[in-house]
Amino acid sequence: MRVLPALARRAFSATAASRAKGPINKDHHVLEYSADVFPLGYGVAGTHCGVKKKAGVLDLGILASTSERPTAAAACLTRNVFKAAPVTVTTELLAQGNGRARGFVVNSGCANAVTGKKGLADAWAMSNALTSGLPESAAKGAGSFVMSTGVIGQHLPIDKITGAIPGLIADLHSTPKAWLDLAKAFMTTDTFPKLRARSFELAGRTVRLAGIDKGAGMIAPNMGPPQPPHATLLGVLATDAAVSPAALQAALTYAVDRSFNSISVDGDMSTNDTILALANGAASPDLAEITEASPEFPVFREQLADFAAELAQLVVRDGEGATKFVTVRVRNAPDFNVANTVARSVANSNLVKCAMYGEDANWGRILCATGYADVPAGAIDPFRVSVTFIPSATCADQSPLRLLTKGEPEADIDEARASVILAEEDLEIDIDLGNGEAEAQFWTCDFSHEYVTINGDYRS
Amino acid sequence: MRVLPALARRAFSATAASRAKGPINKDHHVLEYSADVFPLGYGVAGTHCGVKKKAGVLDLGILASTSERPTAAAACLTRNVFKAAPVTVTTELLAQGNGRARGFVVNSGCANAVTGKKGLADAWAMSNALTSGLPESAAKGAGSFVMSTGVIGQHLPIDKITGAIPGLIADLHSTPKAWLDLAKAFMTTDTFPKLRARSFELAGRTVRLAGIDKGAGMIAPNMGPPQPPHATLLGVLATDAAVSPAALQAALTYAVDRSFNSISVDGDMSTNDTILALANGAASPDLAEITEASPEFPVFREQLADFAAELAQLVVRDGEGATKFVTVRVRNAPDFNVANTVARSVANSNLVKCAMYGEDANWGRILCATGYADVPAGAIDPFRVSVTFIPSATCADQSPLRLLTKGEPEADIDEARASVILAEEDLEIDIDLGNGEAEAQFWTCDFSHEYVTINGDYRS
Repeated sequence: MRVLPALARRAFSATAASRAKGPINKDHHVLEYSADVFPLGYGVAGTHCGVKKKAGVLDLGILASTSERPTAAAACLTRNVFKAAPVTVTTELLAQGNGRARGFVVNSGCANAVTGKKGLADAWAMSNALTSGLPESAAKGAGSFVMSTGVIGQHLPIDKITGAIPGLIADLHSTPKAWLDLAKAFMTTDTFPKLRARSFELAGRTVRLAGIDKGAGMIAPNMGPPQPPHATLLGVLATDAAVSPAALQAALTYAVDRSFNSISVDGDMSTNDTILALANGAASPDLAEITEASPEFPVFREQLADFAAELAQLVVRDGEGATKFVTVRVRNAPDFNVANTVARSVANSNLVKCAMYGEDANWGRILCATGYADVPAGAIDPFRVSVTFIPSATCADQSPLRLLTKGEPEADIDEARASVILAEEDLEIDIDLGNGEAEAQFWTCDFSHEYVTINGDYRS
Repeated sequence: MRVLPALARRAFSATAASRAKGPINKDHHVLEYSADVFPLGYGVAGTHCGVKKKAGVLDLGILASTSERPTAAAACLTRNVFKAAPVTVTTELLAQGNGRARGFVVNSGCANAVTGKKGLADAWAMSNALTSGLPESAAKGAGSFVMSTGVIGQHLPIDKITGAIPGLIADLHSTPKAWLDLAKAFMTTDTFPKLRARSFELAGRTVRLAGIDKGAGMIAPNMGPPQPPHATLLGVLATDAAVSPAALQAALTYAVDRSFNSISVDGDMSTNDTILALANGAASPDLAEITEASPEFPVFREQLADFAAELAQLVVRDGEGATKFVTVRVRNAPDFNVANTVARSVANSNLVKCAMYGEDANWGRILCATGYADVPAGAIDPFRVSVTFIPSATCADQSPLRLLTKGEPEADIDEARASVILAEEDLEIDIDLGNGEAEAQFWTCDFSHEYVTINGDYRS
């Protein structure tokens, strides 16, 4: 018997009903929140300052911790050799501040990547404009992180940015509108702002978690902790739980490997990919920070990973030109790395993605991509591999459709049933390697004509 | 000063004149040959036997050596874990025959991949039908290789194939028509047959080389010698030079790394990729076989590599939906592997390929793909990398267009000039890593709407 994991189940249930072929319906991905779900002790704001040409389109945002105790910070950053200036600045600030930070500033419209010395100076100017406008902090060296996204190789209109930051500082709030404005300031080719919030119990207290991310193309992140420092996937996870910097980094690295590093739109890893985590302890001013040794740590880590997966999946739903949301689940692998590598290989296959777009049950391509995954020799035994389509929760017939069993194709695949399964927005491809117990999930979208149109002339 | 390498120069000159935007013009890629350019001592034939539904479309071909001395054989085969049955059979035959073979049989329309035990029996039946129909051979254990290409997971109509082989054996010729028929029998989504022939001097004699290949999609080969045995790029290089099996394998491995393993259409490595080499010595019956120690060996190896590159480039010209032919050249790298890995990363980037389709000088994507290439830490120094567009030979202005110099973007890139360069069918992207002396080239095509259309519903 097959039990859907919680994450996949939620992804499926997001699709309300059976659908006609076409772009993913995004309306129901913008959720409305009341003010009390957002973490305590943060102020946020967003505005249009002129990085983007179109008036009124938000392109600059800030978040600042207003908590009296030092705010723990962690980051996972792109492993691309060409790190954008904001990635360099964030890396240095994390080291200087000993894992403490004040907040961050983000702009969209220009990535400030491959911009040489001036680009680096501009990123520092953004950081300093925020830090210097905030009240004195108890945490020595704690600064403001920087995130930028947009076109590579162009300079920021830095005066417009630094000129607008004081106004944003004067306008810091924690209202649903302020959080949504901040999420809008992250957007480039995104078609909807990506904001989520939740609360959970930790050490007997209610703590809150807010998250924002962005991304629709150039999505194949592979981020690690700042050493070695090396995404245009941007995101932030802010909590009012009290967590030590080391524990926050450990939890974030774990969460990112199982969320943002397990999604793909087009297989291109950006120069700017950045996921920040902030924990200001405002929910429990009287409690010490959780460390990796705390009994609460695994609870926090799993909550963070689950929340990160929810946010990461939104990026795939908004994948450039996407009409399908595909979960690739690899089970019974020798270890997580093999499972993850196979899932990544299938999720990144252009031929698989085109077949999904065409609603073509071409499982040969799935197997082919499984076979060329870059795993150690012997990690896959072709005669133990099984492949199954798992129908979306919106399908009337919920039974899995087996395509391949232990390396042998099923004798009579019900193509009509396959067509019904593939007509849904959501699909899960289950790959059972049959030689271990480890599991990994990867989320991807299909490859459509619209993707080519969007990316054939991005800059104009 | 920049000097175009010989291969790139030939590729450029293939484009006769300036062009309107649209699919690659393929008419001038089918060349006419006279009978005397084909290697001596081979008979070839092709027919329609019924693997493909459409009457008259060639789907079965054979090549047999008619030389009296044993024919040396070598192969580079897919490294995909899911090896198709014909790959398994070819691997075993190469071992059994101690590097000797009689010829090969090829079919298109069905890949005989992931077809279990029956598939393996079918592949052996194809091989045996050819071998048993040929006269007795002096080379003990020498058999007939097998190649299949087409849909994965379906069984061959084996009786139609084995039933047609005796007729093909009775029809073996070395006429231009017979060679072209054999080339046509390789075709699947290919839009033109890929046949080349040339002659050169070796040890004072004229030797001849004929080559056929096929491929238009699922093209990102990574083939090695049979150990470890692990390609739907199919090809054969047949010569009448006398070369020992070991020397032939060494020369083929070298040639494939610099040709078929250095092309990409969509980044998907097939279960069937196979390149065969045969050397029957018919041009010089009185000479001993060349070994790796022979002074002639480097001459033969370079001729084979150059010829293989010509054939490999034809696959890219015929890339599914391709409108552009792009040469990615990485220079001044620490070693060949780094150069090759960077070139492969750029050539496989969907975002780079979409930008080429859109004729958009988005060099940031080139740099981005350079930065995420899977090379050892420190192999790329971002502050030493330069990127340049090299215009096609058809451009009036032949001067290179520098985009990035030692990590700093050029101040004023002439976008009008970039548009003119990008409007041509051919383009070379030159990436100078600035930290070594090694070089590699990779050939790729752009990513078009037509690619998505072709692959959205391949099986119907």
